[in-house]
Amino acid sequence: MTPVFANRIGKLKASAIREILKSTADPNVISFAAGNPAPEAFPTEAIAKISNEILTKKPIAALQYSITEGYTPLRDRMKAYLKDTQNIGRDFDDLIIVSGAQQGVEHSCKVLCNEGDTVICENPSFVGSLNAFKSYGVNLVGVEMDADGIKIEQLEKALTENPNTKIMYLIPNFQNPSGITMSLEKRKAVYELAKKHGVYILEDNPYGELRFAGEDVPTIKSFDEDGIVIYCGSFSKVLSPGMRVGHVTAPKEIIQKIVVAKQTCDVHTNIWSQIICDEFMKRYDFAQHIKGLQQIYKHKCQLMLDGIEKEFSPNVQHTVPEGGLFLWCTLPEGSDMMAFCRKAVEANVAVVPGTAFLPDEEKYSTTSFRLNYSTPTDEEIVEGIKRLGKLTREMF
Amino acid sequence: MTPVFANRIGKLKASAIREILKSTADPNVISFAAGNPAPEAFPTEAIAKISNEILTKKPIAALQYSITEGYTPLRDRMKAYLKDTQNIGRDFDDLIIVSGAQQGVEHSCKVLCNEGDTVICENPSFVGSLNAFKSYGVNLVGVEMDADGIKIEQLEKALTENPNTKIMYLIPNFQNPSGITMSLEKRKAVYELAKKHGVYILEDNPYGELRFAGEDVPTIKSFDEDGIVIYCGSFSKVLSPGMRVGHVTAPKEIIQKIVVAKQTCDVHTNIWSQIICDEFMKRYDFAQHIKGLQQIYKHKCQLMLDGIEKEFSPNVQHTVPEGGLFLWCTLPEGSDMMAFCRKAVEANVAVVPGTAFLPDEEKYSTTSFRLNYSTPTDEEIVEGIKRLGKLTREMF
Repeated sequence: MTPVFANRIGKLKASAIREILKSTADPNVISFAAGNPAPEAFPTEAIAKISNEILTKKPIAALQYSITEGYTPLRDRMKAYLKDTQNIGRDFDDLIIVSGAQQGVEHSCKVLCNEGDTVICENPSFVGSLNAFKSYGVNLVGVEMDADGIKIEQLEKALTENPNTKIMYLIPNFQNPSGITMSLEKRKAVYELAKKHGVYILEDNPYGELRFAGEDVPTIKSFDEDGIVIYCGSFSKVLSPGMRVGHVTAPKEIIQKIVVAKQTCDVHTNIWSQIICDEFMKRYDFAQHIKGLQQIYKHKCQLMLDGIEKEFSPNVQHTVPEGGLFLWCTLPEGSDMMAFCRKAVEANVAVVPGTAFLPDEEKYSTTSFRLNYSTPTDEEIVEGIKRLGKLTREMF
Repeated sequence: MTPVFANRIGKLKASAIREILKSTADPNVISFAAGNPAPEAFPTEAIAKISNEILTKKPIAALQYSITEGYTPLRDRMKAYLKDTQNIGRDFDDLIIVSGAQQGVEHSCKVLCNEGDTVICENPSFVGSLNAFKSYGVNLVGVEMDADGIKIEQLEKALTENPNTKIMYLIPNFQNPSGITMSLEKRKAVYELAKKHGVYILEDNPYGELRFAGEDVPTIKSFDEDGIVIYCGSFSKVLSPGMRVGHVTAPKEIIQKIVVAKQTCDVHTNIWSQIICDEFMKRYDFAQHIKGLQQIYKHKCQLMLDGIEKEFSPNVQHTVPEGGLFLWCTLPEGSDMMAFCRKAVEANVAVVPGTAFLPDEEKYSTTSFRLNYSTPTDEEIVEGIKRLGKLTREMF
């Protein structure tokens, strides 16, 4: 029987990044295509110690069914942590533990958007979230960015032209894929626009703690007195992505609906990993741990930037991120970016073509590609950038 | 801002079972309302041993991002296991690891059903799955069961009356909530009907291995030569539900779309728990472990049945399950079942009102309630059934 799929899913393709990730299984390929934390960033001994204790002393608690909202001690700890460190959470808010921030994004769309509703996002934006939105048949509208974040005038125009907009999806810190950080001024402007147009802001902040340069900028959620911001965070970049633990802070009514959606999806997030996250934060100096990660990524980012300055054609532009895992290179206007990416693979270096991050490949185009510096070793960064540099000098 | 939710989710309520589960936090209440494996059913020492080894010897593999399809050794092991033990899997099939069979059900609906399409299910059926279907705005049609499973004539009528049927959702073994097992004859009839009407069978089999009486009946998937059965299984009842590991076997094109759906939902299932499942099956005698579980549940089920025979009013009917975790009691026609359930809570015994399992509370009614024997202790079973029995003798 030839399956007839639901309209919402029929046209959706597997993420280009994940497909490239598979092809990079070749050990000869230097991959700048992933988004994995550095192997040295995992506090493996601490996790092993906590895990062993849990599974020896109270195994049933870690193995039995649990409640959809999440492990209560972790929820309480995260609420306090987000309030203390970022002034996130008002009396009208609640917090749910989810299976990675990805699930927070997917469920937010599921509970808020009917098919045909509009979601406005940065262009380019994170492919996983874009596919989550597409999987509910929404109309995706992309708004360009400057070096300090989304273009406010274009955003206002998009809101006016799409009165059925339900969600503005934004990654204000070290955006994936661009590495751009939104200024405080723009965060405030975005908030006012959302308020004016009756639209929710979905603030995705998986990299926020990985700032290694510049000054912290308050999250949009930190000034949410009106209950219009849904904030997604994650343990993936600060502890372990394989655990699949994230969290969503939003007005209670929205969290209640996300609980219902999650109940029908995976019942609850793996409970062992929730306990690990809680105990790690309780027993260890989390702030100190984060500082260690910042040093790792600062070093790797600088190494890549130094290589680019030295090796790349001066006609290739690039962003200079203040944190996170990615930087974004842009070839001269009119360049054949896909040809460059293919040649890179021939030279055994994998990058992600910018087209993967377009809200709609038919409506938008790009000559950019994404580089990740968190996963490769120092040697791979130096050698891979050398190879890419040679290509850019030959081609542009 | 007062949220306006998507149509698909606006009317959906939190599962009555989960709400009751929360209320049963009162330690004075004997709960027959859960669906948890018995605490003594967890191989806690083996899991602790495996976990400690993984996290000491190859921690990064257990903590890093992984691929959406699932941990390859576990996928290969499950394919071989399902083929060997149940003749599940043809050349046209593939297998994906999901975050519990619940996710298999939810994603199957997401990829196959548009809003308004029909899903046919047994009436009553598992509330978690019913809510997953409802969360995509499908038309749910319930078909009654006899002691040997779904009523075939009624099923055929439902198929004819609903030509937009996409999925028949069935739990052939020790059905939740009824405890009923579908006969081989009916499984074959159901398969032929699905084939004739071009409808997929979604076969949910979380309890299949927990048979403690009678003879094994082949799964519907075991005779699927036409690629029309989507088979969901789970480690929740045989290893640990807190781990959230399940699996789906279906034709490759369908698995590919489920991969896409899962990628946008939780990227991949917790990798630590996938490795635990794989290593447990590799290192331990899984068949022997299952036999141990069967003995636990056989004993608990018999204890509850003995109590019912001794204590309950003869006017209350009940099923006699050959496996699984549940039995189903039916009060005389016209009884006020909700009043009975409320009085039970007053007597500090929690049961789940049958209404929780109706495909549509406005279209269908019931005088039944569900009893779980896997979670309570022996003492609780004896005492709880005594209290319920007293109530039944007073009321019916």
